[in-house]
Amino acid sequence: MTALTRRGLLGSAAVVAAGSLIAPTAHAAAPASGKQVPGFYRYKIGDFEVTTFNDGFVKVPKLDAFVVNQPLDAIQKVLEESFIPKDDVRVQFNPLLVNTGSKLVLFDSGFGDNGAATQGQMLTNMAAAGIDPKAIDVVVISHFHGDHISGLRAKAGSANFPNAEIMVAAEEWAWWTNDSETSKAADVWKGQIANVKRVFEPIANDVKRFEYGKELVTGITAIDARGHSPGHAAFVIASGNAKLMYIADVTNHPAIFARHPEFRLWADMIPDLALTNRRKLLDMLAAERMPMTGYHYPFPAVGYIAKRGDGYDFHPASWQPVL
Amino acid sequence: MTALTRRGLLGSAAVVAAGSLIAPTAHAAAPASGKQVPGFYRYKIGDFEVTTFNDGFVKVPKLDAFVVNQPLDAIQKVLEESFIPKDDVRVQFNPLLVNTGSKLVLFDSGFGDNGAATQGQMLTNMAAAGIDPKAIDVVVISHFHGDHISGLRAKAGSANFPNAEIMVAAEEWAWWTNDSETSKAADVWKGQIANVKRVFEPIANDVKRFEYGKELVTGITAIDARGHSPGHAAFVIASGNAKLMYIADVTNHPAIFARHPEFRLWADMIPDLALTNRRKLLDMLAAERMPMTGYHYPFPAVGYIAKRGDGYDFHPASWQPVL
Repeated sequence: MTALTRRGLLGSAAVVAAGSLIAPTAHAAAPASGKQVPGFYRYKIGDFEVTTFNDGFVKVPKLDAFVVNQPLDAIQKVLEESFIPKDDVRVQFNPLLVNTGSKLVLFDSGFGDNGAATQGQMLTNMAAAGIDPKAIDVVVISHFHGDHISGLRAKAGSANFPNAEIMVAAEEWAWWTNDSETSKAADVWKGQIANVKRVFEPIANDVKRFEYGKELVTGITAIDARGHSPGHAAFVIASGNAKLMYIADVTNHPAIFARHPEFRLWADMIPDLALTNRRKLLDMLAAERMPMTGYHYPFPAVGYIAKRGDGYDFHPASWQPVL
Repeated sequence: MTALTRRGLLGSAAVVAAGSLIAPTAHAAAPASGKQVPGFYRYKIGDFEVTTFNDGFVKVPKLDAFVVNQPLDAIQKVLEESFIPKDDVRVQFNPLLVNTGSKLVLFDSGFGDNGAATQGQMLTNMAAAGIDPKAIDVVVISHFHGDHISGLRAKAGSANFPNAEIMVAAEEWAWWTNDSETSKAADVWKGQIANVKRVFEPIANDVKRFEYGKELVTGITAIDARGHSPGHAAFVIASGNAKLMYIADVTNHPAIFARHPEFRLWADMIPDLALTNRRKLLDMLAAERMPMTGYHYPFPAVGYIAKRGDGYDFHPASWQPVL
């Protein structure tokens, strides 16, 4: 290759034409795409293949009705520290699919067609990922709030995962199906109680109820994480030496509720127990440096928990271009 | 809807069959996908549509040859704090495409087919995003290191962006095309100098050389960010009231070089100037809370800079399921 001298650079017209990168004339502007990439992402935990799906989001309508034990300025300060717009806090929904090699296991169902326009994207994202809902063997439910169960059944009544066994925590089942408990619940839960009936009544005989500490599917163990709901469960997903904890709603958005575990989410049904189990599980994740994922963590929602001060930081795992 | 009593739950066989979610028999295991989602992501800056592409990654072969002014244990401690595996530090490459509405502007070229097997994924990801390389109007180059320019030209010699005007900083051009400068460079730069000739010699007449502070395309202004290379440039991309700074290589991986700006990257050609401009630009980003993106930041590589202690934290922007 000749030296890149000024003479060489100026070169001859013939050389420039032969290798030209330059357009002689302007051309029409490319249209904007206007479309986001599909919301799914894959990673491995040992031999297991995990796929996270985004099911959409909801804007928080009123900050001090979302965090119920803090003044507005304290909530806004935390948002500012994490560069979250104070007037546009979004809670995402991110169900998890684990292929164990012998079973396709979905954790929580998303909304299906039962949510608002910004919700219920999982089935579309599953299609983009080449996953047939009919191929799902097991749906494990962390708890019975609508964003985690509504998508088990379409609004018209049909099952979205028609070949899947549905597994739920025995304590969660016991509370929501006990009229003497649910009749004492605050009015805000009335719609949720009706939704539980809509989803589960037609299949009540067949729902598998599990105890904490039990292995549900090879490698997948339920963990006591009560407080957010009466029978809320987390899960350890283990293959070989690798582990992932799915904490479901042990914390909602990590920039708020992991950073400040004492901030109380409106939907924490037994707040003191929720706080106790939040600290217990986040301490465990930090001590073991265990990979974790949370339903309301920013997509793709996988990372690590570190203790800092009186709270915890979420460190997203680096996105990987290959599995 | 009937009450979800124990009686209601046990129901009749007919009800269960009609709405059953449960598979009567096991079926064949779904195969693992084995494939990651394509590496592109979109966001808006005012009316501009930005698409980030991943061009792959490289594993750092030797930590204390990557960070050259720190003992190994100091580097390992920083990695541990950010949950980066000490034996698998990966540097990613993330070029940026901006559609201004009238121009498609690519920032840096990736490797094309000139890199290793884990590099050069941008053209594949562009195809997945529906972007034709022939539609790109302008390629703006931050500096002349191979990961930023090699993909302008395929190994066989053809231009990968045949209709694009190529824009480079005048100071970068001046250094790399001045044999009396490059002949004094350390041996490690010999291959890079040859690569600059391979890429630019055939188009030397037509490359547009810009000065810092100048608007290159409506809304896109070059910023003096020298030090990483003799004529390294950053860019402010502005539309309406919205701004994004593309810092290119002002810092490499943020968990290392934003957290510890004094850590010296092997490839910083004028280290003291690189450190001065690193602090100056990161201070500006932190003070203005301006969105930013960096070529070697973890995909999708967009977020914010906050000052903490003597260094800076990178806060990734939340992934958004819609534009």
